[in-house]
Amino acid sequence: MAVELPKAAIERIFRQGIGERRLSQEAKDVIYEFVPKMARYAADSSKAILDASGKKTLMEEHLKALTQVLMVDGAEEYDGELFGRATVRRILKEAGVERASADAVDLYNKLICRITEELGERAAEYADEDDRKTVQREDVERAITCIMPRADEFL
Amino acid sequence: MAVELPKAAIERIFRQGIGERRLSQEAKDVIYEFVPKMARYAADSSKAILDASGKKTLMEEHLKALTQVLMVDGAEEYDGELFGRATVRRILKEAGVERASADAVDLYNKLICRITEELGERAAEYADEDDRKTVQREDVERAITCIMPRADEFL
Repeated sequence: MAVELPKAAIERIFRQGIGERRLSQEAKDVIYEFVPKMARYAADSSKAILDASGKKTLMEEHLKALTQVLMVDGAEEYDGELFGRATVRRILKEAGVERASADAVDLYNKLICRITEELGERAAEYADEDDRKTVQREDVERAITCIMPRADEFL
Repeated sequence: MAVELPKAAIERIFRQGIGERRLSQEAKDVIYEFVPKMARYAADSSKAILDASGKKTLMEEHLKALTQVLMVDGAEEYDGELFGRATVRRILKEAGVERASADAVDLYNKLICRITEELGERAAEYADEDDRKTVQREDVERAITCIMPRADEFL
């Protein structure tokens, strides 16, 4: 099932990571496609960790475990823009998570937003290394490859 | 803490993935360093999923969840060479897993062996694409980057 996340929000959250740098249209297109896929992957993964716990309600600790497995830094402390709570609840539901605590939904939201922001930070570093003021598609793809497992599933 | 895994076994398991192709010394060196790190990462991740479940004993379902999160294909059906059971129990213990069922230890073992074998399969594909009969360091690094999250932690 396709996950719907507003492009404008995806872009704003990603831009938190790139500061004043410019962003090419091709790079934006990669992000618009990547972030919903990554959100769905994170929801499926949350469901797998929930199932392994033998419980019925997704709790904050399941998301903490996912954060650790994915080695995401700063998810719990993330204080940037978030996606709408109803939207992320729907994504979790589509992944089979019928019940989730408010804390779990919030941490899931922070996790996917932090990955999006971090993607911007990494892509910006690659653009800087290459002495460019514009973040290009290749920078974003390289960042995705570094951050995600099974990069080819996301590109 | 450093994880000890016998280089000869690492190499044999990796070679299951590359068939008759040759393997450069530099490529071997990357694998000898990567596999123990990856094994430790998989043990830490198993511990995180165990903790999220609120249980004390690592069970097969915790490893199934990790397999799903890492999108590893064929871990449960893996029937190649395995590492010694006492060795992998020790790695899990070093990661804080005090108790583990025999099934969990076996699936953990299969998981890390399958990732090693798959690394060989991918590296071999990259060598083939490049019309080389020898798997080189760059092929292995590219395979690690594609398979693992946070590739820079493993290279």
